[in-house]
Amino acid sequence: MSPAGRGRGRPAGEAAGTREQIIDVARQHLAAKGFAGTSLRGIARDAGVDPSLISHYFGDKAGLLVATMQLPFNPIDVISSVLEGPVEGMGLRLVTTFLDAWDPHREVFSALLRSTFGAGQPSSMPAIQIAQNVIITGIRSRISGPDADVRATLAAAQIIGMATMRYVAGIEPLASAPAEEIARSYGPAIQQLLTP
Amino acid sequence: MSPAGRGRGRPAGEAAGTREQIIDVARQHLAAKGFAGTSLRGIARDAGVDPSLISHYFGDKAGLLVATMQLPFNPIDVISSVLEGPVEGMGLRLVTTFLDAWDPHREVFSALLRSTFGAGQPSSMPAIQIAQNVIITGIRSRISGPDADVRATLAAAQIIGMATMRYVAGIEPLASAPAEEIARSYGPAIQQLLTP
Repeated sequence: MSPAGRGRGRPAGEAAGTREQIIDVARQHLAAKGFAGTSLRGIARDAGVDPSLISHYFGDKAGLLVATMQLPFNPIDVISSVLEGPVEGMGLRLVTTFLDAWDPHREVFSALLRSTFGAGQPSSMPAIQIAQNVIITGIRSRISGPDADVRATLAAAQIIGMATMRYVAGIEPLASAPAEEIARSYGPAIQQLLTP
Repeated sequence: MSPAGRGRGRPAGEAAGTREQIIDVARQHLAAKGFAGTSLRGIARDAGVDPSLISHYFGDKAGLLVATMQLPFNPIDVISSVLEGPVEGMGLRLVTTFLDAWDPHREVFSALLRSTFGAGQPSSMPAIQIAQNVIITGIRSRISGPDADVRATLAAAQIIGMATMRYVAGIEPLASAPAEEIARSYGPAIQQLLTP
């Protein structure tokens, strides 16, 4: 992230503090109201900043949601690289790109899944909001035909299920299989949902 | 379960106590040693009963594992009904049968998933042991060809992922879609792993 505040003549320390302040308020709004119920305007009001500053730092609401999570990479960039290509072969790209991104960060995925399902209402948790408003929405935008809404969600469910077995439950041979072997089998199964 | 102790001339109350005692000891052994490391002989010794009594009450080790979990149905019976038929159409039967069994017990599935991943080492949890030693082992016994071990595990991952999104995360439209609509889309995706 660029230290945007400096361009406005503020000291860097104050800008960083403002950014953190916005993220804190966003976390509270997203947890209490969900993604759809949260507005950048409402966050700006409670954080005492101008709404344009939020757009400046984070882009849109999904970007702000991602910033609340402190992930080892940006899932918006990762899913974009998958969705940009042709819908043929997208199943294989989804698995390969997901494993590339998460295999080096198994513990982070595991901690995220545990905190998402360990307590409280999962639908209000940021990981579920990302799944719904970044991943599933992205997949849905590229597919068509009957049952497309259910199929986009099921494709995401396949990825979540695989990652849960590989990273969290540690079930062999999936836990230590090479990414290429998983992609070879799983890519066509996901493709079956994208282009039945 | 039949009140087996009565046939041996014991009062029913004592038989029920013995059965619970075996289940308690089995829970401890399975949690500490995992499914593969647990022996019926060791459980019998610690419970102070003859090993044949365990076989009599629970059948085999998988049956005893299931008994420790107090599920609303017996997953061994459910998966058997799926595996008995032809491997063609098994993907559709897996989804349909799973939804038939779990849709009326969403809260139980949810609680099970939360307790499995909420704390501790998931691989030692009974739900993971069932997935591995009943479901995945069962699927694996019916499929062949390259990567069959990974494919059997991925087929189970698909089911777990779908159930997590439907019952636990409650992501729409999956959470309230009719079972038939899910089966129509997901059956062929699972079949892709069983018979690529």
